[in-house]
Parts: sequence; structure tokens; C-alpha cells
Amino acid sequence: MLRIDGGQSVQRPDTLVVEEPLEVRVGGRSLVVTMRTPGDDMDLAAGFLVSEGVVWAGGHVRAMRYCAGATDEGVNTYNLLDVDLDPALPPPDPSLERHFYTTSSCGLCGKASLSAVRTQTSYDVSGDPLSMTPALLSSLPHRLREAQKVFDRTGGLHAAALFSSSGELLALREDVGRHNAVDKVVGWALREDLLPLTGTVLMVSGRASFELVQKAWMAGIPLLAAVSAPSSLAVDLAVEAGMTLVGFLRGTSMNVYAGQQRVLLEASSSVVGVQPLR
Amino acid sequence: MLRIDGGQSVQRPDTLVVEEPLEVRVGGRSLVVTMRTPGDDMDLAAGFLVSEGVVWAGGHVRAMRYCAGATDEGVNTYNLLDVDLDPALPPPDPSLERHFYTTSSCGLCGKASLSAVRTQTSYDVSGDPLSMTPALLSSLPHRLREAQKVFDRTGGLHAAALFSSSGELLALREDVGRHNAVDKVVGWALREDLLPLTGTVLMVSGRASFELVQKAWMAGIPLLAAVSAPSSLAVDLAVEAGMTLVGFLRGTSMNVYAGQQRVLLEASSSVVGVQPLR
Repeated sequence: MLRIDGGQSVQRPDTLVVEEPLEVRVGGRSLVVTMRTPGDDMDLAAGFLVSEGVVWAGGHVRAMRYCAGATDEGVNTYNLLDVDLDPALPPPDPSLERHFYTTSSCGLCGKASLSAVRTQTSYDVSGDPLSMTPALLSSLPHRLREAQKVFDRTGGLHAAALFSSSGELLALREDVGRHNAVDKVVGWALREDLLPLTGTVLMVSGRASFELVQKAWMAGIPLLAAVSAPSSLAVDLAVEAGMTLVGFLRGTSMNVYAGQQRVLLEASSSVVGVQPLR
Repeated sequence: MLRIDGGQSVQRPDTLVVEEPLEVRVGGRSLVVTMRTPGDDMDLAAGFLVSEGVVWAGGHVRAMRYCAGATDEGVNTYNLLDVDLDPALPPPDPSLERHFYTTSSCGLCGKASLSAVRTQTSYDVSGDPLSMTPALLSSLPHRLREAQKVFDRTGGLHAAALFSSSGELLALREDVGRHNAVDKVVGWALREDLLPLTGTVLMVSGRASFELVQKAWMAGIPLLAAVSAPSSLAVDLAVEAGMTLVGFLRGTSMNVYAGQQRVLLEASSSVVGVQPLR
């Protein structure tokens, strides 16, 4: 690549984040194709199945393997993953893409999307007794970045990390796609048979969208923290789930959009008042 | 929301980016459901159809309307959009989601994804005579931010902007989704009958993924500039297309990953040498 800086330019090699397609097949049938950063592919596939409500316990995934003869020449591209599920499970809906957004009886709207997730999830996070101090929450972005070795090289990866209630890093995954990074973390947990992820915190490097809250709820995670802003529907879904949603977690400040009872304010930091909207 | 900053906390209202599902139907048949920021929905739907190779000229879209009686109660949710296409066009592939990634004859791989886009696009950008100085390119992020009014309020929106070869802003669109913002810009251009977008620059506020390069190529845009990093497959696709791809466009610096001939170095800024990979 050509690096230009002010009046100077220089030709030099660069390290790029790799992006390749991954196709997930269940019982030989294609379920999804996603662009992803290769690595932790089995976590990604498992997490995708959790997010879509196809599986919700470690034993549900019997086996995963790359298709050996993917091309005409019999070459394994490591971009095709075959998943065998517990035969007792209902087969996945072929229209997974629409699973959460549409219902047959109602016009498409945000509210329908919320109740669709409630119908799908196997876990209730509303009663999760997790609590955290703002100080501990504020330490998470630093802990994530410390662990995020690849980031310094490419600048192009999204990260998702799972922490225990004491702030211990349980898992960290990266991907070019924000959703994929979360699926990889959830899939790791499924494969470790840790679902539901009671008492844990999911931290993401970007924004908090509806779909990330959905993925956290499907995995039974009671607190989602993001470096950037949530969307309106993400907040609505967190409220519906009884999940704690923290946004703009930067330095010593943060915004708590839902589930404030899990953020333990110190005695000295009583609420100073109610400010009007700027 | 509860704002916590160091030892202080305050309850206050907040402005959030709205996220709602949008379903696009063609001839009454559901084609895609996407989470998006409401607004410019017809641009979004039109741009999506361009990106997927369903339409490529202004006359191809005959009409678009919101479904009036979307719910059982006959309420218009403004989340269902019906599109009528020129009846002479082939109907869209029901498996659009996989259109670009899989081919029947070859194992799934990055290379197959590249040639799939080449097969789909109606436009050749490799001979586009556009050229720009680094100084003009460096001014684009500022011009984008100046125009991006909403951003200051919410901090949660992605932006895409189309510029002329002289740096004039032609269109700016925002969305919670990076891809949607680009589709909205391309859809605007289709509806203005401006395709192919020869001699223009597409600027995006985030990373440059494979899919954004694909969308630019499908619309005939010869230069894509991003504030953050491109992926490996994005660079590969830009090279395949003969498109110029600029990343890390910040301050007075940038990286040119493909199509360097369109970036006009000043006489005084000759290439100073070749640096080894750090």
C-alpha cells in the first residue's frame, strides 16, 4: 500500500485483517453464509446457533467438522463447517434470517421484534443477582484492550469479551464483524457447557444494537456493556429482558440505560439530581 | 438513563438512535428484513436492490409504497415497503443472502466471492479517469462530519457520503448499520437516475469491508475512502475491480490499498522509498 502523510509518501507492506466467507451447514443443509475473520470458526458456528435459538445447551452440538472435499479438486477451503445436532432437537428453521423480526400475526414493528426474542430465549436474566461497582465496570475496557493483541497490528477488528462478576476475563474473541465476535464468545461458552451465563458481563468494543442484546439474552447474560451508543430498540429489548445495559463505557464514565439495580453506586456518590435533556 | 462520571451520578434523559426493522417486498414477496434507522427507507430499499444486482438503472424501479394495512388492526407501521419492478426484469433470486458468496461449482472461498461480484455487476470502474489530490481527499472527512448533524446528538450512527471529483457533497445518509448507510446513498443515486456513479468518491465513517467494496462496484463508484481499516478481501475485491481503495483517511494522512493511479501526488512529494513491514 501507499502511505501518504502530509507531503510525504512511501510504499510499504501492511498487515490486514483477513475476511473470508464461512458457510455453516446443519445435517448437510446450508443454514447461513457469513463473512468472518477465520479462527474460532467452531465457536462462531455454535454461537450463531445459540443466537438463533437452535441450541441452548452444550450437549446439543454433537460434532462439527470442516468439509474435506469442498472444491471440485477436493481441496478443503476451511470455509465450510458441517454441524451435527442432537437428533432430538427440532430442525432449524430454514428462514432463520427472519426468525426474530417477523411474526405471522402482526405487522412488522419493534414491539413484535421484542416479543419474538422473548418467545425464543430459554433463559430468564431478570432475576440475576449480579452487581458491579462503577469502578470495576470502568476497568473492563482496559482489560479487554490489554488482551486484544491483534488490534494494535491492524486496527480493523471488533472485540467481544466475557468477564466474571469479579472482573476476571473468561473469554475474548475478535472478528471483522461485531456480531461474529459476540457469537464466537457465546459459542465458546456453549462448547464449554457454561450456558446460561449467569453472573457474567459481556463487553463489546463498539455500539450496542438490538441484535447484540438479543445474543446476550439468548445466552443468559445479565449485563451488556458497550464502548459506544446503544440504539433505541437495544434499550427496549434490555428493559424487556430485565438486562443491564451500559453504554459509552469510557474512562471513569458510563451511561446505564437499563437494569440500574446491578450498578452499585458507592455511598458517597449519591444521585445528584435530575438534569433536563440538553 | 443513569449517567455515572467518577464519583458522581445523575438521572437524565438521553437521545438515542432509533432502530426498527424494515421488510422489503418485491411484487408482494418478502425479499429481506433489515434493522435500520427509519428515514430514507425508499433510498435504502433501492440501494439494497442495486447492491444485490436486481436493478441497475433508474427506470427499473417503477413504484415503492408502504403497506397501508400492515397489522391486524390495519395500522401502517411504516416498516413494510412494497417495490414494483420493471416487469421485463428477471425476478430477484429468493436466496439473495447467498448470492455473492457461494457458487454451485466451487468450494466457498474468497476467490469465488470476488468472481461472483464480477459476474453480477453491470459496470466497469477500472477505466474511470477520476483523480484526486491527497489534500482534497483529506478534506472529505471534515466535510462529511460538518454535514452529519445527527451525529453530535447520539454518537451512534454510521455515515456514508458521495462526493464529486471536485469534493462537492452530492449525498449524505446515516444509519445504525454501516451497510444500510451505503445502500441509502446508492439508492438515492438510482432514484435520481445517476447510475453508474462515474467520477465520484464514496466516503464511509467506519471500516471498509468486502461488502462495502461490493456495493461501490455494483453502483459504478471508482473510489472508496474509509476512516478505518479495510479487510484483506476488501482490498482483493478493489484490485479485481480496478477501484481505488483508501483507508485510515485521518488528518493529512491516508493509506492507498488499491488503484494508486487515481491519487495524484504533488511533484514535491515524490515517493521517499520502500519501508519494510514493521
